[in-house]
Amino acid sequence: MQDINLGLYFVSELVGTAMLLLLGGGVVANVILAKSKGFGGGTLMINWGWGLAVFAGVLVSSYSGAQLNPAVSIGLLVAAKIGFAQFLVAIAAQFVGAFVGAVLCWLVYRDHFDAEPDPGAKLGVFSTGPAIRSYASNLVTEVIATFVLVFVIFAFADYGDIEIGTPGALGPLTAVPVALLVVGIGASLGGPTGYAINPARDLGPRIAHAVLPIKGKGSSDWSYAWVPVVGPLIGGTLAALAAPVLLNLA
Amino acid sequence: MQDINLGLYFVSELVGTAMLLLLGGGVVANVILAKSKGFGGGTLMINWGWGLAVFAGVLVSSYSGAQLNPAVSIGLLVAAKIGFAQFLVAIAAQFVGAFVGAVLCWLVYRDHFDAEPDPGAKLGVFSTGPAIRSYASNLVTEVIATFVLVFVIFAFADYGDIEIGTPGALGPLTAVPVALLVVGIGASLGGPTGYAINPARDLGPRIAHAVLPIKGKGSSDWSYAWVPVVGPLIGGTLAALAAPVLLNLA
Amino acid sequence: MQDINLGLYFVSELVGTAMLLLLGGGVVANVILAKSKGFGGGTLMINWGWGLAVFAGVLVSSYSGAQLNPAVSIGLLVAAKIGFAQFLVAIAAQFVGAFVGAVLCWLVYRDHFDAEPDPGAKLGVFSTGPAIRSYASNLVTEVIATFVLVFVIFAFADYGDIEIGTPGALGPLTAVPVALLVVGIGASLGGPTGYAINPARDLGPRIAHAVLPIKGKGSSDWSYAWVPVVGPLIGGTLAALAAPVLLNLA
Amino acid sequence: MQDINLGLYFVSELVGTAMLLLLGGGVVANVILAKSKGFGGGTLMINWGWGLAVFAGVLVSSYSGAQLNPAVSIGLLVAAKIGFAQFLVAIAAQFVGAFVGAVLCWLVYRDHFDAEPDPGAKLGVFSTGPAIRSYASNLVTEVIATFVLVFVIFAFADYGDIEIGTPGALGPLTAVPVALLVVGIGASLGGPTGYAINPARDLGPRIAHAVLPIKGKGSSDWSYAWVPVVGPLIGGTLAALAAPVLLNLA
Repeated sequence: MQDINLGLYFVSELVGTAMLLLLGGGVVANVILAKSKGFGGGTLMINWGWGLAVFAGVLVSSYSGAQLNPAVSIGLLVAAKIGFAQFLVAIAAQFVGAFVGAVLCWLVYRDHFDAEPDPGAKLGVFSTGPAIRSYASNLVTEVIATFVLVFVIFAFADYGDIEIGTPGALGPLTAVPVALLVVGIGASLGGPTGYAINPARDLGPRIAHAVLPIKGKGSSDWSYAWVPVVGPLIGGTLAALAAPVLLNLA
Repeated sequence: MQDINLGLYFVSELVGTAMLLLLGGGVVANVILAKSKGFGGGTLMINWGWGLAVFAGVLVSSYSGAQLNPAVSIGLLVAAKIGFAQFLVAIAAQFVGAFVGAVLCWLVYRDHFDAEPDPGAKLGVFSTGPAIRSYASNLVTEVIATFVLVFVIFAFADYGDIEIGTPGALGPLTAVPVALLVVGIGASLGGPTGYAINPARDLGPRIAHAVLPIKGKGSSDWSYAWVPVVGPLIGGTLAALAAPVLLNLA
Repeated sequence: MQDINLGLYFVSELVGTAMLLLLGGGVVANVILAKSKGFGGGTLMINWGWGLAVFAGVLVSSYSGAQLNPAVSIGLLVAAKIGFAQFLVAIAAQFVGAFVGAVLCWLVYRDHFDAEPDPGAKLGVFSTGPAIRSYASNLVTEVIATFVLVFVIFAFADYGDIEIGTPGALGPLTAVPVALLVVGIGASLGGPTGYAINPARDLGPRIAHAVLPIKGKGSSDWSYAWVPVVGPLIGGTLAALAAPVLLNLA
Repeated sequence: MQDINLGLYFVSELVGTAMLLLLGGGVVANVILAKSKGFGGGTLMINWGWGLAVFAGVLVSSYSGAQLNPAVSIGLLVAAKIGFAQFLVAIAAQFVGAFVGAVLCWLVYRDHFDAEPDPGAKLGVFSTGPAIRSYASNLVTEVIATFVLVFVIFAFADYGDIEIGTPGALGPLTAVPVALLVVGIGASLGGPTGYAINPARDLGPRIAHAVLPIKGKGSSDWSYAWVPVVGPLIGGTLAALAAPVLLNLA
């Protein structure tokens, strides 16, 4: 393991996760907010938007190995690929970055937030919510979807001999497969809960929704907020435990 | 040929095919089941979803060379690229894996299966069915579409000097072209039968549909079940025979 | 230049162009023919389908360097990258291959051809036609669109140090950029004429349409047939002449 | 730094930017102009069209390093990666190239411009306009979206050890990530202003719109014209200043 500067590590995760939320929240805003040019652009457009948000986030988060997601970081911790200090710094940065990205997204679409009458649509740009509310089912969905994300990333890293979580681990060409994976998970497993699959991606923007002076906003739906935090952490942990057994990792 | 551990070979094919069906069934569920966020997402979304399901399946199935499909395995057998023991182990694992993946997909979308009134839509998440029922025509379609799949994979492997069916044969970057090929076959040849092009992908989930306690499910349409088994096996065999002649393989 | 076996050269171009038309015609059939599962899938789906048809065609046409298009071949001839015998063999194979591919496509979608009431839709699976008929304008569109195709291919080959038209010149990873280029040309320049940009792609299937026993077929629109032959040949020639001047080729 | 021939540099930027506008304007024409085959193709199709327009533009603009955008060039100048003479030559070529590309696009779609009754749609093929007109908000959107473009390009170049702005800096495989980035920015941040993110892309075609004899054209909307010039220049400058701090560039 190389010498890690935890300050640079923090900045790297923060910048990457802010980029993720700016572009990820942005595509939802484009498709669902009133008068936006992409209004009604459809689910596949949202899937591509989030996949390419991950793509851009990975590219600007080289130093920390572009984890961008506490579910990935907990998987790396469980697999002993990062230490506990790195883990804490990474997830702190991810929550702050997600908050910052959500604020930037709101700035980009501010007039469209004002023009949108439905408070539910406004919240939908920030955080996920279930299509059919049922905490147990929603949790299962988030666990399985996040398991897929982290499990495939572990397989992918093993294939490509990539030391996830270390400086410079991912480059432009490896960012493409990760982006495609997220497009695929969204298209396939996003139907019931909107695929948070990332506690920071959901909770950071939910806090932003609560504190920002958004015109005509409604509830931040705190009763659901634990599902996209707990589910992904379980999924990421299970993936890290299952990977060595099921993937025959070298 | 390297020394193969048939136990690891079995696990590798099982895991890859389960991933394939979890994500492949998932995108259909997302697009066609009631109240899903991707409802009405369209055919291109389904094509991308299946292509990226193959992508993820290939990435988690390194040890066995990610065959994931009895039509591919029979092609490898005919071309003497794998032995008969490997062939049997692979297809057994593929059927079990497809069954497991279909069960996981049902768990992810369970509330949406309950909310969906149409039994035909429920079956459509598991298995394919013809747009216009005509066994002879449907068989021809599946033969040709599977021929394309296996023929191009053989060409691709020859290009890239890849020993399909052996450990570590495919990596993240080679998984991208295979995914794109499946997107293309789905968009181009999926219109009449929904492109099973894989006996395990169709029969494994059909058995899952028959045994799972799915609320309000209808028939598993066993009268059609032989077409997506026989057609792909013929197509894969023909491709393996045609490849050396038509591709001028080195 | 390597020693070329013109028989293998012929087979290679034939197989690649047949694959191109099977998948390219297929996606149009899927989107426009009655009762097809992809009916109404939209223009972007057609663009992806044709791009990935090129992708698959390139992969199975290694020996001849995957020209698949008389407009590309005439460009290579003008640029002295292939000889006149190779040129003649290539374009003969391309026309035969396009005819064969169109017949296979018809076999895949035969029941849907029977179910489709509109003769114009049936022809549309085989050959292109203008949105607004005006031979001069349509010709300009085909010249410019084909210019883009051949010009970018020349730039791309120069970048990647690829000897187009020679055995093994293109591999799986280089096939991806070519596919993306065709997706882009279709999305951007396909509006007025349906982007033939390839004389064999249009004329071969038009002959197939004329001779096949398609139920309820109408005219093969021979009065337009010269446009997608002449336009692409002009465009390919101009691109080959312009490339050294405008691209500062090494 | 290598010896640069400014004449070749000018041609290279001109050709690349002309390609960008021909294909980028083309996809908008295809989706919004009357009777075009891609009419109603949707926002995601426009996003892919522009992304692949960048892809093709990069491929034909090797000598100058494919800047194609004054916002990129000003970033390179601020970061001292190109000199002032190169900067001036590049942006002059970009404006001329964008004008030329817009004229070619008009030639391709000429009959459809004639058939289109809405003058706003005609201008929309050439230049961007805001969904909700508010100069301050629109400027913020363009600044942030262009910041993302240039910031990620800097990160990407650092990753790949690419000397942007120098001959041969980008090849076919590196063009793919840049194209994906533009697809992502369009899908995510294009809602409020149509993502000019490039002064030449907007102003060059606006001049073309003003001078071309387009049947039934309306205003060229000069009152908005400064926003997509000033916003991107600010965004590109800020990105060049922020990149070394936030990206920990080597």
